[in-house]
Amino acid sequence: MADAQAQRSDYRYLQPITTRWHDNDIYGHVNNVTYYSYFDSAVNTYLIEVGGLDIHHGQVVGFVVSSSCDYFASIAFPERIEVGLRVAKLGNSSVQYELAIFKDGEAHACAAGRFVHVFVERSSNRPLSIPDNLRAALTALLPSA
Amino acid sequence: MADAQAQRSDYRYLQPITTRWHDNDIYGHVNNVTYYSYFDSAVNTYLIEVGGLDIHHGQVVGFVVSSSCDYFASIAFPERIEVGLRVAKLGNSSVQYELAIFKDGEAHACAAGRFVHVFVERSSNRPLSIPDNLRAALTALLPSA
Amino acid sequence: MADAQAQRSDYRYLQPITTRWHDNDIYGHVNNVTYYSYFDSAVNTYLIEVGGLDIHHGQVVGFVVSSSCDYFASIAFPERIEVGLRVAKLGNSSVQYELAIFKDGEAHACAAGRFVHVFVERSSNRPLSIPDNLRAALTALLPSA
Amino acid sequence: MADAQAQRSDYRYLQPITTRWHDNDIYGHVNNVTYYSYFDSAVNTYLIEVGGLDIHHGQVVGFVVSSSCDYFASIAFPERIEVGLRVAKLGNSSVQYELAIFKDGEAHACAAGRFVHVFVERSSNRPLSIPDNLRAALTALLPSA
Repeated sequence: MADAQAQRSDYRYLQPITTRWHDNDIYGHVNNVTYYSYFDSAVNTYLIEVGGLDIHHGQVVGFVVSSSCDYFASIAFPERIEVGLRVAKLGNSSVQYELAIFKDGEAHACAAGRFVHVFVERSSNRPLSIPDNLRAALTALLPSA
Repeated sequence: MADAQAQRSDYRYLQPITTRWHDNDIYGHVNNVTYYSYFDSAVNTYLIEVGGLDIHHGQVVGFVVSSSCDYFASIAFPERIEVGLRVAKLGNSSVQYELAIFKDGEAHACAAGRFVHVFVERSSNRPLSIPDNLRAALTALLPSA
Repeated sequence: MADAQAQRSDYRYLQPITTRWHDNDIYGHVNNVTYYSYFDSAVNTYLIEVGGLDIHHGQVVGFVVSSSCDYFASIAFPERIEVGLRVAKLGNSSVQYELAIFKDGEAHACAAGRFVHVFVERSSNRPLSIPDNLRAALTALLPSA
Repeated sequence: MADAQAQRSDYRYLQPITTRWHDNDIYGHVNNVTYYSYFDSAVNTYLIEVGGLDIHHGQVVGFVVSSSCDYFASIAFPERIEVGLRVAKLGNSSVQYELAIFKDGEAHACAAGRFVHVFVERSSNRPLSIPDNLRAALTALLPSA
């Protein structure tokens, strides 16, 4: 899979994340589920801090409709990691993210994933056109940007 | 996607899971990440209780090498759910699971996912042939079984 | 500590909880943090199902202001557990819960904890008098009830 | 409670932690349970990086026998926080930690907690004398140090 070749320089935004004691499972490595929480945290930090998303009171809510991850090498607390983020496709109401996990100082990814957000109106749950501030932030993460 | 049609009767093993307060995220529904913890828990319960996997001291360890999920309808604590499990492919050292989440009493899935376990030797991390007890348990979840 | 003597029959409400794969930490037992998620889940299930608390849209929100737990014996996924719950003190706007974790079929607790909820108005965060439906549900868990 | 006065300068070790999307619960703040995962992560990072604890293969394992937390002010993802850590009591085989959570740049704590580790031999679960390297690291966090 091409993602196994994922390199740090392929991602336009990098978010440091501190691993936690209980990210490790009984086998001593970060549990496969936890990678998705890294993805969620990196994307939402970007949407909030760069795109102006108001997760508390805003009328725009991002729903995840699909997600996946491929795992290449293990990580273990207390290692430091970074999440790389780029946008693969940007539609009228949805966006597909591509993400990867890098250990501190390493060029190649330990894992690569992707997920799709559909933005909906909070009160009705109906898809809406991505507002301008969010769209600008997402556009900046497109490969062509 | 065909999985959206996933029905309870398509899964050979059903594992009840009690949702938790903090499965819900700020948007009031079970977070997309948490579905993977349901999958992990259902599979490992089956491997331990039916396949005799010894997660504490056994020489066989299951590593997840890829996973994915499609989300069709939201769930919220304190709803009761069941995880459906079947085996899609069974190789020499790896197995591909298909899973789905059902609300109590509902025939159609709220989400459908899949993941691949590669079984390795704990001491060396090298893939091994799936032992007989585990293979028998997994074979029982094949559609042709 | 008296709590070490905590017995199943001392608790007026018992909530079964299914343990999860990743409740276990690297040492192979349920992580100390996870016990608090069991407590949170048992209390909120009771408040919702018996007390009529609407966690999505209601004007009453319970904030935890203190919590503690003593651990007597380890638990490990996939063991089945129950959370015992009783009310130790019920004030105008706050309630102190006492909780304990029991393995399936065991009389003595593996852990005993407590936490205090202050009920506030969602919009202002100001303490309010516990509404009648919630108060009735909580009163039913007092030792004198 | 004196802890409400807890100030950043009272803690000898400070560990930055990045909050995560799902630290927030349905009420939009970091869930009370999650504070304990911050405590666990700060203590174990210190034990590993300063005290030389080998959580994968070492013969010394720290078991938590009691824990508690008081909550003064809410935190919400994606706020940056630090965990302050000091040692209150150091015995032959056990240690009592005091911890507090600070928002970036704030002098006063949002929460203050404490927990007790008993160090045991991994193979027997029997308490042992804290080894020299760990003891030195813990001694450095005593107020008198």
